[in-house]
Amino acid sequence: MQIGMIGLGRMGGNMAKRLVAGGHQVVGYDMSPESGRDVDSLEALVAALDAPRVVWVMVPAGKPTDDTITRLGELLEAGDMIVDGGNTRYVDDARHAEELGKLGIRFMDCGVSGGVWGIDRGYALMVGGSKEDFEFMRPIYETLKPNDDYGLVLAGPVGGGHFAKMVHNGIEYGMMQAFGEGFATMVRSELVDDPAAVMTSWKSGSVVGSWLLDLLANAFKDDPTLESMPPVANESGEAKWMIEAALELGVPTPATAAALYARQTSRGGGDDTLRVVSTMRAQFGGHVTKA
Amino acid sequence: MQIGMIGLGRMGGNMAKRLVAGGHQVVGYDMSPESGRDVDSLEALVAALDAPRVVWVMVPAGKPTDDTITRLGELLEAGDMIVDGGNTRYVDDARHAEELGKLGIRFMDCGVSGGVWGIDRGYALMVGGSKEDFEFMRPIYETLKPNDDYGLVLAGPVGGGHFAKMVHNGIEYGMMQAFGEGFATMVRSELVDDPAAVMTSWKSGSVVGSWLLDLLANAFKDDPTLESMPPVANESGEAKWMIEAALELGVPTPATAAALYARQTSRGGGDDTLRVVSTMRAQFGGHVTKA
Amino acid sequence: MQIGMIGLGRMGGNMAKRLVAGGHQVVGYDMSPESGRDVDSLEALVAALDAPRVVWVMVPAGKPTDDTITRLGELLEAGDMIVDGGNTRYVDDARHAEELGKLGIRFMDCGVSGGVWGIDRGYALMVGGSKEDFEFMRPIYETLKPNDDYGLVLAGPVGGGHFAKMVHNGIEYGMMQAFGEGFATMVRSELVDDPAAVMTSWKSGSVVGSWLLDLLANAFKDDPTLESMPPVANESGEAKWMIEAALELGVPTPATAAALYARQTSRGGGDDTLRVVSTMRAQFGGHVTKA
Amino acid sequence: MQIGMIGLGRMGGNMAKRLVAGGHQVVGYDMSPESGRDVDSLEALVAALDAPRVVWVMVPAGKPTDDTITRLGELLEAGDMIVDGGNTRYVDDARHAEELGKLGIRFMDCGVSGGVWGIDRGYALMVGGSKEDFEFMRPIYETLKPNDDYGLVLAGPVGGGHFAKMVHNGIEYGMMQAFGEGFATMVRSELVDDPAAVMTSWKSGSVVGSWLLDLLANAFKDDPTLESMPPVANESGEAKWMIEAALELGVPTPATAAALYARQTSRGGGDDTLRVVSTMRAQFGGHVTKA
Repeated sequence: MQIGMIGLGRMGGNMAKRLVAGGHQVVGYDMSPESGRDVDSLEALVAALDAPRVVWVMVPAGKPTDDTITRLGELLEAGDMIVDGGNTRYVDDARHAEELGKLGIRFMDCGVSGGVWGIDRGYALMVGGSKEDFEFMRPIYETLKPNDDYGLVLAGPVGGGHFAKMVHNGIEYGMMQAFGEGFATMVRSELVDDPAAVMTSWKSGSVVGSWLLDLLANAFKDDPTLESMPPVANESGEAKWMIEAALELGVPTPATAAALYARQTSRGGGDDTLRVVSTMRAQFGGHVTKA
Repeated sequence: MQIGMIGLGRMGGNMAKRLVAGGHQVVGYDMSPESGRDVDSLEALVAALDAPRVVWVMVPAGKPTDDTITRLGELLEAGDMIVDGGNTRYVDDARHAEELGKLGIRFMDCGVSGGVWGIDRGYALMVGGSKEDFEFMRPIYETLKPNDDYGLVLAGPVGGGHFAKMVHNGIEYGMMQAFGEGFATMVRSELVDDPAAVMTSWKSGSVVGSWLLDLLANAFKDDPTLESMPPVANESGEAKWMIEAALELGVPTPATAAALYARQTSRGGGDDTLRVVSTMRAQFGGHVTKA
Repeated sequence: MQIGMIGLGRMGGNMAKRLVAGGHQVVGYDMSPESGRDVDSLEALVAALDAPRVVWVMVPAGKPTDDTITRLGELLEAGDMIVDGGNTRYVDDARHAEELGKLGIRFMDCGVSGGVWGIDRGYALMVGGSKEDFEFMRPIYETLKPNDDYGLVLAGPVGGGHFAKMVHNGIEYGMMQAFGEGFATMVRSELVDDPAAVMTSWKSGSVVGSWLLDLLANAFKDDPTLESMPPVANESGEAKWMIEAALELGVPTPATAAALYARQTSRGGGDDTLRVVSTMRAQFGGHVTKA
Repeated sequence: MQIGMIGLGRMGGNMAKRLVAGGHQVVGYDMSPESGRDVDSLEALVAALDAPRVVWVMVPAGKPTDDTITRLGELLEAGDMIVDGGNTRYVDDARHAEELGKLGIRFMDCGVSGGVWGIDRGYALMVGGSKEDFEFMRPIYETLKPNDDYGLVLAGPVGGGHFAKMVHNGIEYGMMQAFGEGFATMVRSELVDDPAAVMTSWKSGSVVGSWLLDLLANAFKDDPTLESMPPVANESGEAKWMIEAALELGVPTPATAAALYARQTSRGGGDDTLRVVSTMRAQFGGHVTKA
């Protein structure tokens, strides 16, 4: 199948390679001249594809994706298909689909998991859109997904793919926080000599066996105390969106929130809260708080 | 009534003054010669009191209190009374009462709230022990408590006073954290010009009106942004004990835990957790985390 | 000053009375004929007021407020003033202000705290809008607010009043949850005989002294175990909005979230989470979970 | 190697079978005559073993384990070895080791993960004790563990095995809660047609791939909505102990706590908290709360 890939970074670039290896014809475009792109503009990309054109958008969520989809709406024709494979917030999908729908352009959203390992391991794909569009795109999805019975699902209508991916990443936050809390507890205890060795041993036979644990065990080989890593973590947006979606649905997500809050706190988000706490303590108890 | 006061620090010293002002005869002892103590040893304190002696222990919780009570057990006689007014963990009270009981020495635990304001405002007292002992000590309690219908309660048997005070302080943690989260949220919003002015306005008419808010408003006069306070907070132990007690009782205390965790995090307690999180992110997504 | 009050329920009705008692001329309207309304339609309300008209909207947040403001935009004239005193989400204020601004109609948002007690105690008012409009409305605000130096603040530009009120209510959630956790912990402990008596004693001298505690002590007089109250709580929306706003600002609000989650959980929001947990336990450990 | 196995339930019985299959001689004892036990008393068990005897205790944590170890202390001789493989709280291990040590009896603690699948998959073992004792017991451990490079670790001195297992289970709680929150969020969203199908698809290629997810996918085959499972979950003790240990070490464990609190709440632990919340709401706002 022929497909245009927009965005040839860590994700898009590897996905393009996996598609080529799977026998598809990929025309790649990226803003950066160093990206190994096949064409140097969106116009050239569109011109290089046969109708009905299939374009996969794999650029950062938010304005970059918005701008790309808007511009594609101007360049593509009725009957063409855009798949947004980025980490777009699900609420944007309906808007994109509606705008493109007026032009007769088809739209699907596809959450993609797999990270830097996906090129070999395959990507887990969560798709939103119609069954008809899903079948149309199936050859692409089948090549990107892992070579077994899992890793691909039509989650629901437009927006459902990114919603499912958002939830997936929220779960990922919670799992990582859980492992982190366990490691941190063992580090401070005199009863555990080598927390990294303990966690590595869980790779087999244990209830917590998981790909994340395998990755952590990999990292422990080089740095069993993790001291080379700063004690901070960035957020990617998706746990935040999941918590907000769940709030509106009336679903409590305390573990997911704990995971996100730990990251926001590590970036200073709670500083003013603590200033208030220590100010009150000083006021009622004369407690002096030193930095 | 005659009473020996052991510990003449911020709390004990002020309580002694309030008792004297209330017509009681107080013999004060403190380890520090600069404390304004009346006697320079526990032996001298005991010698200065008439039987049945009443001794109020107001020293730091843990070993200092343990040591003091043990030594008093050696010095006092059957029929004498010890009140532990410090922030002792409630589980220690039964042990103290049992050891002293073997010697015929009576024991009560008394949680004391009020901070540096108690000397004028009166202290909120939560007492654990028998009704008979409570009545015996009532003249002291009545002087220490505020001059209205509240501020004194026989919470339960020995241990109940410190248990109630522990819960009281746990609630205090939660309240302070709630105010802190609200302030921090307003600080970052462009819609609120002066968070300190907003919070100060809540002193009247508002549902969140409270003594803690009044104290915070005091502090805002000097530093409306609280920037002079470092973004950290110490813990005093009591919220931790409450959370543990509640865990054993099967009672979830998520807001209290959130408050304590915020303080522990500000002291680096979550650092290793975040190292794990960012290590995993680097492993699966190639994400680089900068300090 | 002359003012039209739309919505004569628990809040609006009492505020109208306080305004009348303060010497203002109030024309009241409510959808319900039993409300004691002065006029029976918005048209009649507008007709009864002299230009520049001042109208206070005190109806439920969301569609009722939206519809009322839209209709008022059609009925009022340039130079008139609308104050939205309801619990509107702050994000709606900018939209309302913009729409009305095109018509030359002025707009302020005013968060109102005080509940059923406000008629006597005065209402805490948090206002969003321009300084000029604030001064124009000052006579009304001064009458509604408590009779002391607090309870009124111009929080910021349009939206700031509701933002501040939202944060205020989020804090209120956290405080209530903190008291609840403390009570629940004492109820299950054998060391506390009468949790209601303990909490009532905190009314004086204690660090947790607050209006909320006073109200709780009132309720304890009739039902010291609170067994007449079902173990559930509804949410009003504002804590949810605050948590979402804070998430976007990067400010962790774990205690506020704990408070909201407790309420959502009491309404079944976490049921499916627990089904997953117990399903996994059954799968790996053969654990049987009974309802 | 010859070994006595005390407790032939779901865990001990399967472990005995795996040991026999591995060529060891196992003498099994259980209180229940229907257990397939080899001997009908602890005395008979001890008599059936050659010195130095090796006994594996696999009975419920707490009093059953305490009583068994005490009785074994009376029956065994200097040089014999006891391994506690149950879910004993780590703080008990030092006590057991000390008591047995006075008698010259050796002691190790061994946390065992693997559930009902361990008989085939092997058990993850976390051991506490001396290196010498670990080597002595190695033949048993090597048979019980999975047939690869992982699943066995000498975590630290006595107590370290159960400490590591406690942390392991705490992590397990957090992971399960994370999956549960994700499922619950998708169930309520109109954008996801079949949450079970989405989660099952994550078995390959996804960052959340894990043994727990595989088990959940198994269960989804029979009940994709999980409606056959009641919306409650029991606690096993170990997350509670981990949270308490972490509190004392100054390590915040908010995700682990969220997981445990969700279970305690499902068993009514938060009921009194909500009574307080709704009582306050009724007091200040006249809000009526219906069950």
